[in-house]
Amino acid sequence: MGEFQLIDRYFKRRALRSPLGVGDDCALLAPAPGMQLAVSSDMLLEGHHFLATVDPVRLGHKALAVNLSDLAACGAQPLAFTLALALPQADERWLEPFSRGLFALADAQGCELVGGDTTRGPLNICITVFGEVPAGQALLRSGARAGDDLWVSGTLGDARLALEVFRGTLSLPEPVFQSARLRMEQPVPRVALGQALRGVASAAIDVSDGLLGDLGHILRQSGVGATIDATAAMDLLAAGPALQQSGGGLDQELHLGCVLAGGDDYELAFTAPAARRDAVQAAAAQAATPVTRIGRIEAEPGLRLVDGRGRPIERRYGSFDHFA
Amino acid sequence: MGEFQLIDRYFKRRALRSPLGVGDDCALLAPAPGMQLAVSSDMLLEGHHFLATVDPVRLGHKALAVNLSDLAACGAQPLAFTLALALPQADERWLEPFSRGLFALADAQGCELVGGDTTRGPLNICITVFGEVPAGQALLRSGARAGDDLWVSGTLGDARLALEVFRGTLSLPEPVFQSARLRMEQPVPRVALGQALRGVASAAIDVSDGLLGDLGHILRQSGVGATIDATAAMDLLAAGPALQQSGGGLDQELHLGCVLAGGDDYELAFTAPAARRDAVQAAAAQAATPVTRIGRIEAEPGLRLVDGRGRPIERRYGSFDHFA
Repeated sequence: MGEFQLIDRYFKRRALRSPLGVGDDCALLAPAPGMQLAVSSDMLLEGHHFLATVDPVRLGHKALAVNLSDLAACGAQPLAFTLALALPQADERWLEPFSRGLFALADAQGCELVGGDTTRGPLNICITVFGEVPAGQALLRSGARAGDDLWVSGTLGDARLALEVFRGTLSLPEPVFQSARLRMEQPVPRVALGQALRGVASAAIDVSDGLLGDLGHILRQSGVGATIDATAAMDLLAAGPALQQSGGGLDQELHLGCVLAGGDDYELAFTAPAARRDAVQAAAAQAATPVTRIGRIEAEPGLRLVDGRGRPIERRYGSFDHFA
Repeated sequence: MGEFQLIDRYFKRRALRSPLGVGDDCALLAPAPGMQLAVSSDMLLEGHHFLATVDPVRLGHKALAVNLSDLAACGAQPLAFTLALALPQADERWLEPFSRGLFALADAQGCELVGGDTTRGPLNICITVFGEVPAGQALLRSGARAGDDLWVSGTLGDARLALEVFRGTLSLPEPVFQSARLRMEQPVPRVALGQALRGVASAAIDVSDGLLGDLGHILRQSGVGATIDATAAMDLLAAGPALQQSGGGLDQELHLGCVLAGGDDYELAFTAPAARRDAVQAAAAQAATPVTRIGRIEAEPGLRLVDGRGRPIERRYGSFDHFA
């Protein structure tokens, strides 16, 4: 199967909203009047962003999901994407399920494939995604202000739990592992929430490298600091209650580490004025996405952890470096 | 050097025309009113698109040039690009010259880096480029009509000559080789010509896979055929006269093969009504880019080669398959 056959068979579909899709030197996009185009690129490599064992259907989903998550963090509505793909060989047993998983999410999000490139080489998936956002309304990392609340969508840390099982450093009851593995392999980008938070959130980022690291970008770019309630944060680990029910439970250090520095979560961390708590909850309800308030933004630079009673937790964030 | 240090040091520059550049979840682009956004992605891999021996300055140039060539083929004006980069290691001796070559071309073309991704892995350079084109004026592959002339910009085949020297199948006088090697390693995208041809050319494509193959896309998508004057085409090989002057000269089969199926040329092949020859020449003069008329578009499907007197050359294009 040659390059053009491969494209025709698995990746060429009629562009519905874009003026020109796959099959010319360029695709053409026509943002609606008053709209800006949000753009993000992510490159996924085996061993770094996914394991060789992953089901290609889930991988197709994830490759687009991590990009849609960047659009979500800007409050943009998905529009289109390009796919550049390096493949060791043109293997239909991989291409068919990969494209199926990819297009299932693309169709669900109204995001159409408009172009790309295929070449032979070590497996590498590079997607560039395009979304629309009304001019001036994109959620940025730089808008957090002292006094704002700090929120996180969904749950954090489950993908990391699954990874540690794959690495052999942890064992989990099978149903807990399968649920954590699904979070790792098929993350749900918070696209609807991101759009619902336009005009409500003051800053946002998607949590892909771990909450502390990603929150650090907001703090630096906004020139502020934050205090996180570690007790509230620990409730974000979805597997936590399941583990306790199964008689297991996690070492507290590992539990907190997964939540604060786990990575691969694709949730949104965002800030909003304390006066807008009702608006945040309304946006969350509209997007059918739970949100949890885990801290507050402060003028004093740096990141502080406190327990449920507000007492400082003396722990250097470096203690999470064993996750690096 | 970590990922964020690497980005800061070599790839983070202030966005001048885009509302938001490197450093947030997404970049923001704001096409001017009435403009469509032309988008193209290319992935470059060592061994396929460049040799390990290439100077990183030239590689930085080429990685962007092959993408700008796609914009040129659509008649779009360069605006911005994203860069996703997989690197075996963060080697400053490679990153500094690579980024220097990249930005030299980017600055010359007014095309700014607005985002991307870096990760560790086998060297892979994936650029997505954005350009502006007035709505409805993009040059497409589908617009060629019977009676149109077939034109090619610049020269063809020199990159292939250089590749064959690297492969050891050919030897060239040193000055001829260095000139051909420059064409292979540092191609000049025909950006100004593409824009000048808006409203003049009926179809266009960039010649990256070889003239016959790329012209085939125009013919299929336009539902037409073509006859190429092989004698006129052979004049496109810039090294031809240089070789003859140096007393060398090429086997005719190899010469024609380099021109028709060489690859890696990044010239424009385009069609225009015969009545627009003056307009084509005016566009070429405006863009300071020579163009050569090498054939004509016909209603009869297929691609025919004739000699300087119009006599059919009985040769199957398959004869160029040894280049594959």
